Amino acid sequence: MTDPAAVKAALKTQAVETPSWAYGNSGTRFKVFAQQGVPRDPREKLDDAAKVHEFTGAAPTVALHIPWDKVDDYAALAEHAEERGLKLGAINSNTFQDDDYKLGSICHPDAAVRRKAVDHLLECVDIMDATGSRDLKLWFADGTNYPGQDDVRARQDRLAEGLAEVYERLGDGQRMLLEYKFFEPAFYTTDVPDWGTAYAHCLKLGPKARVVVDTGHHAPGTNIEFIVATLLREGKLGGFDFNSRFYADDDLMVGAADPFQLFRIMYEVVRGGGFGVESDVAFMLDQCHNIEAKIPAIIRSVMNVQEATAKALLVDREALAEAQRSGDVLGANAVLMDAYNTDVRPLLREVREDMGLDPEPLAAYARSGWAEKIAAERVGGQQAGWGA
Amino acid sequence: MTDPAAVKAALKTQAVETPSWAYGNSGTRFKVFAQQGVPRDPREKLDDAAKVHEFTGAAPTVALHIPWDKVDDYAALAEHAEERGLKLGAINSNTFQDDDYKLGSICHPDAAVRRKAVDHLLECVDIMDATGSRDLKLWFADGTNYPGQDDVRARQDRLAEGLAEVYERLGDGQRMLLEYKFFEPAFYTTDVPDWGTAYAHCLKLGPKARVVVDTGHHAPGTNIEFIVATLLREGKLGGFDFNSRFYADDDLMVGAADPFQLFRIMYEVVRGGGFGVESDVAFMLDQCHNIEAKIPAIIRSVMNVQEATAKALLVDREALAEAQRSGDVLGANAVLMDAYNTDVRPLLREVREDMGLDPEPLAAYARSGWAEKIAAERVGGQQAGWGA
Amino acid sequence: MTDPAAVKAALKTQAVETPSWAYGNSGTRFKVFAQQGVPRDPREKLDDAAKVHEFTGAAPTVALHIPWDKVDDYAALAEHAEERGLKLGAINSNTFQDDDYKLGSICHPDAAVRRKAVDHLLECVDIMDATGSRDLKLWFADGTNYPGQDDVRARQDRLAEGLAEVYERLGDGQRMLLEYKFFEPAFYTTDVPDWGTAYAHCLKLGPKARVVVDTGHHAPGTNIEFIVATLLREGKLGGFDFNSRFYADDDLMVGAADPFQLFRIMYEVVRGGGFGVESDVAFMLDQCHNIEAKIPAIIRSVMNVQEATAKALLVDREALAEAQRSGDVLGANAVLMDAYNTDVRPLLREVREDMGLDPEPLAAYARSGWAEKIAAERVGGQQAGWGA
Amino acid sequence: MTDPAAVKAALKTQAVETPSWAYGNSGTRFKVFAQQGVPRDPREKLDDAAKVHEFTGAAPTVALHIPWDKVDDYAALAEHAEERGLKLGAINSNTFQDDDYKLGSICHPDAAVRRKAVDHLLECVDIMDATGSRDLKLWFADGTNYPGQDDVRARQDRLAEGLAEVYERLGDGQRMLLEYKFFEPAFYTTDVPDWGTAYAHCLKLGPKARVVVDTGHHAPGTNIEFIVATLLREGKLGGFDFNSRFYADDDLMVGAADPFQLFRIMYEVVRGGGFGVESDVAFMLDQCHNIEAKIPAIIRSVMNVQEATAKALLVDREALAEAQRSGDVLGANAVLMDAYNTDVRPLLREVREDMGLDPEPLAAYARSGWAEKIAAERVGGQQAGWGA
Repeated sequence: MTDPAAVKAALKTQAVETPSWAYGNSGTRFKVFAQQGVPRDPREKLDDAAKVHEFTGAAPTVALHIPWDKVDDYAALAEHAEERGLKLGAINSNTFQDDDYKLGSICHPDAAVRRKAVDHLLECVDIMDATGSRDLKLWFADGTNYPGQDDVRARQDRLAEGLAEVYERLGDGQRMLLEYKFFEPAFYTTDVPDWGTAYAHCLKLGPKARVVVDTGHHAPGTNIEFIVATLLREGKLGGFDFNSRFYADDDLMVGAADPFQLFRIMYEVVRGGGFGVESDVAFMLDQCHNIEAKIPAIIRSVMNVQEATAKALLVDREALAEAQRSGDVLGANAVLMDAYNTDVRPLLREVREDMGLDPEPLAAYARSGWAEKIAAERVGGQQAGWGA
Repeated sequence: MTDPAAVKAALKTQAVETPSWAYGNSGTRFKVFAQQGVPRDPREKLDDAAKVHEFTGAAPTVALHIPWDKVDDYAALAEHAEERGLKLGAINSNTFQDDDYKLGSICHPDAAVRRKAVDHLLECVDIMDATGSRDLKLWFADGTNYPGQDDVRARQDRLAEGLAEVYERLGDGQRMLLEYKFFEPAFYTTDVPDWGTAYAHCLKLGPKARVVVDTGHHAPGTNIEFIVATLLREGKLGGFDFNSRFYADDDLMVGAADPFQLFRIMYEVVRGGGFGVESDVAFMLDQCHNIEAKIPAIIRSVMNVQEATAKALLVDREALAEAQRSGDVLGANAVLMDAYNTDVRPLLREVREDMGLDPEPLAAYARSGWAEKIAAERVGGQQAGWGA
Repeated sequence: MTDPAAVKAALKTQAVETPSWAYGNSGTRFKVFAQQGVPRDPREKLDDAAKVHEFTGAAPTVALHIPWDKVDDYAALAEHAEERGLKLGAINSNTFQDDDYKLGSICHPDAAVRRKAVDHLLECVDIMDATGSRDLKLWFADGTNYPGQDDVRARQDRLAEGLAEVYERLGDGQRMLLEYKFFEPAFYTTDVPDWGTAYAHCLKLGPKARVVVDTGHHAPGTNIEFIVATLLREGKLGGFDFNSRFYADDDLMVGAADPFQLFRIMYEVVRGGGFGVESDVAFMLDQCHNIEAKIPAIIRSVMNVQEATAKALLVDREALAEAQRSGDVLGANAVLMDAYNTDVRPLLREVREDMGLDPEPLAAYARSGWAEKIAAERVGGQQAGWGA
Repeated sequence: MTDPAAVKAALKTQAVETPSWAYGNSGTRFKVFAQQGVPRDPREKLDDAAKVHEFTGAAPTVALHIPWDKVDDYAALAEHAEERGLKLGAINSNTFQDDDYKLGSICHPDAAVRRKAVDHLLECVDIMDATGSRDLKLWFADGTNYPGQDDVRARQDRLAEGLAEVYERLGDGQRMLLEYKFFEPAFYTTDVPDWGTAYAHCLKLGPKARVVVDTGHHAPGTNIEFIVATLLREGKLGGFDFNSRFYADDDLMVGAADPFQLFRIMYEVVRGGGFGVESDVAFMLDQCHNIEAKIPAIIRSVMNVQEATAKALLVDREALAEAQRSGDVLGANAVLMDAYNTDVRPLLREVREDMGLDPEPLAAYARSGWAEKIAAERVGGQQAGWGA
């Protein structure tokens, strides 16, 4: 798709879901640094998310986290979103912050704790019904810290049983997205540690179950684009949690640590049919803005995804296929690098102007006065954070 | 199974397959250091393997590598083995040392190269028919070195197609063991890089296809025992290629780098039903003795597996289950560590004495004069190595 | 030192410092699980530490963390310790939990923040004067999350300047122990990321400055015993922060993840003159007991260090040297492994009995009723934790 | 230096040394794939290197490897080079391919082997005298494969002693560049495993000793630009061995795996005064072109270094410093990314045209017919490779 007009048309359809919790405070185990103007409730999170969409035109939905975003009236929350040009997106469960979950949730040795965890997941589906969300996104902190602590295999049995009950509850058009993570907060075993484990469970559950790739959740050196290509080939890629990392699950802005990797991932997405209006792959951010201003960081992240996508779309696939067929290692690599080395920012400025947006989202946001406004107005109350 | 008599009985049934190529020279890309007395043909490799079995009583089969061990008359080779108390084991294919395989074998972009590779695999099944081997062990060096070099997904299609043809050729009682490897010799993508990929292919192929876990073929930090437990749960663990590593695929003696990890792996094997006469999991060594004497290193490796297995068998599983059920993190860990911290060498000396063996295999081998004999006799000719 | 009597005598001199903060609550960024009976002030932490020493005989000092252990009267605190058979140990600074430190402390771009950080370090030396502590232990969370965020080299200049001012303040017999850490909480650069950086700074500061090796603060695959041997050779090893890890800075119990590595480290300590009454190397724990009971975990950790040390002392160094001299790779390895494979628990039971202790510290602690007592008595107030 | 004219002027001075051995065959332990037209002697290697310089204008020197490039008459070899517009560069020693070096060279337990190794290094200095080379580049494969195999600390003593003797032999204007490597071919300890060890030795040797950073020789996740900044600050950065890697020491083309990392490294070089006519930092390639055509791969590598350097020079350092000073995390990152995201290929085409070169070196080389010529002419004889 090296026709710039087609690339631009494709880019105009791009949508990146932002997570409600990224607008709140976050940090490390050492310290959470509070920021000025941070939202104090789900509506204020949506207000901020609306700004990201207003200036990028590419962030039309917002993922919720239960119970952090629990409200009495989800219809009213959805209306609040819609008034701001947004829709509510995936529902994310939380089975890691109750005291009961010290040794796990859905994999816990005690059936009562497992019951509680599954009930929470079922409640999340109820919320999906209310919000009209398509996706239930499941990340389990379950695991063990010490060899012998629990029976690795029995935990898989419990996991399978719990997931099956939730899967049965899904309605038509609803999906279960299962996330894997290499480690943290568990430090010896993690019950869904890699794509293979998530894939095996999804396969047994059925077609509504898909794997989520969080780009920060892999062992050092893992080739993530290979996993993406494989899951697309298997019809089991549900979506992405985008972020970037140098070390572990650093949760930095997507594209900040290794923009070439992000490009390679997006190339496999495009090549594998995962991009575009026909695809149901979900593109979501899942980041922590511990020290940088949150809204501009999220705008920057959306732009980074756009830039990587633009480069991926610019790859001359015919030339690439020809070089690959003929075994021209350097030639094939050069075709890919030619797209990567292109400065796509002018193209994206045009895309934005075509969409009636300011070509420079960050500058436009800075001029908008929103940051000053929320710092002045959001005083008192409890700032949102992982524990709230 | 904390009854010492039962543990001893179980240990007497243990069998570890040794690979013919470990008796030959090996090295790194920088240098292959030749050793005195190295075998010059498959029969001399079997002669050495017989010594390992003679002194350990636990290495009754020998894996062959085609074409390194190609002979005109496999029945005669099998007879040579049997005269020495051995049987021929798995047949290992080689699709990485012909010039044609520079860009891959079964995944190569050129159909003619793929045909050649598949034909080689079919020939290996022919050899299995001749040797009576149960297992065809497949490791593919296939992959790419540079982004864009080839189409990641198309390579999976080619892989699936080639494997399917070979699978169809398998006879009753024959199996295909598919090995995965994180990287090397390919340095960007590897076509079977992780257990998930191997598992997905085996699942589609059918019940005769199983995954092989090479303990050196994982990303840093990967929890191998988790993979073992998972594959056993799925009924898809075919066997092990044992070795150990500090960094990459170092191919050091099993148990040399992290004996605690080996114990944890063997514990999951035992717990998951992968050990004992009812199990068809294959235990094989796959190591390189670049600087240490080869036969003693292999004897030591067999002993290391025995020691880890003995400790795994000694775990007080009732006490462990009780501590796990009650959420006693430290108590459960202590049960496991109690077995690990036990010095099982006296127990294994008893096992050997019961079997009519010298309790100290390495000392007995040293006294046997075999090393001096082969150094004196195996003069002239071409020493076996990876290229021979 | 394969004379068991000499080994036992050496073991009786062993001392492992426990950290006050390990008795308080800790967790991950996802959740801190509170435990019953956790201390609410420095005195209660000392009360718990006294129990560890009472049952192990090997934990006679307690490290303090400022400001978490700030008190009005350090002499009274020291007296509280001494009444329980303890002494106060190293003073640990904290320059990572004030809001001012969001972008660093001693390396911060703003001179006012650097001034505040250095003043805190100077205050810690004042406290050392009051407590009679020998060691100021410095760990800096300083670093950056994004490329370009700050000037990497200028931060080193600021670090050198700040350390120099603190070094000048040290009295006779006082030392500065500089800790390095691979990453976290900074996720792009860390200002003291490796032993080389810590060493280079200590070298310029002078003989009172030494490097601290935290066993969890290295890149995957790093050979820690090599670093220990090198620092001992350079006369720059100040001490250890012991813990263990499978992935990142997991802060599990020392010896829990890789007991063979702990043994190899202790062997280099012994071989390099770092163990025994003539050595001034400090052995400290620095762990997080997020899900396991804290006091028993600390007792277990002290025991793990003792067991690794016992094995290290049991190495037949003459036989080892002879095998090394003759290039006997397998023989030399076997000498080391022979010590490692020895079950030293009977020996340590004897050591404890000789010292008038119960041979089984964990069982004795469990019987003591202390856990029940503190759970019942320590009600109300604020449990100690990283933020308190 | 955001003035394009100044950037172009700086780029015209850039020189990247190419290694003679990269023109020969290389491979992995599994297979060396021979290529057509590969040089058969040092002169043919220089002929190929001359082509790289002819088309890039940026590769004026060639590093030699002894004994691979041993000749009777170095003056004649130098004249051969000069006739082709080249100069001979660094002399690289080889103490890893003689059978004597199985257990090490300069660190070997046997003094006779150490003597042989040191004599080889002294011979390399003799050759430097003959070639007029400034730099002796030392990489030692020394290390151990098994715990206990040798005395880690004694090996450091031997290393120090050997290096000191060679250092003493250096003439005025000659330097010793000491390379470190994380692992391979040694798989347990490596005697110079990290920059800290190399730095400590260089510090004691004196001002002529400097550290070489090979970009592929680090633990996973290591921040290489931090090391570069630190070594420049200490005045101890001797130079680079450029290549790239996804996993271990993959020796792929520089910039192929992580072009953003290469940019960050070059930014620290520029910022730390390591680039330009006043700097004596050496920029060298050290790569293996196992499957791709060698000369084009080397041309591409030189271009990749140029592109990263151009981007580094384009960083608006005033704007960056201002953002850093004010703690503007996103703003500072954006200044850096703005340079990185620039397509510098047009600028480099101008640089080449100004220098009288074809703006597209790879296309020009392809048109030159050199590849066909050497494939036709270099028939018979022994192709150069690591063992030749």
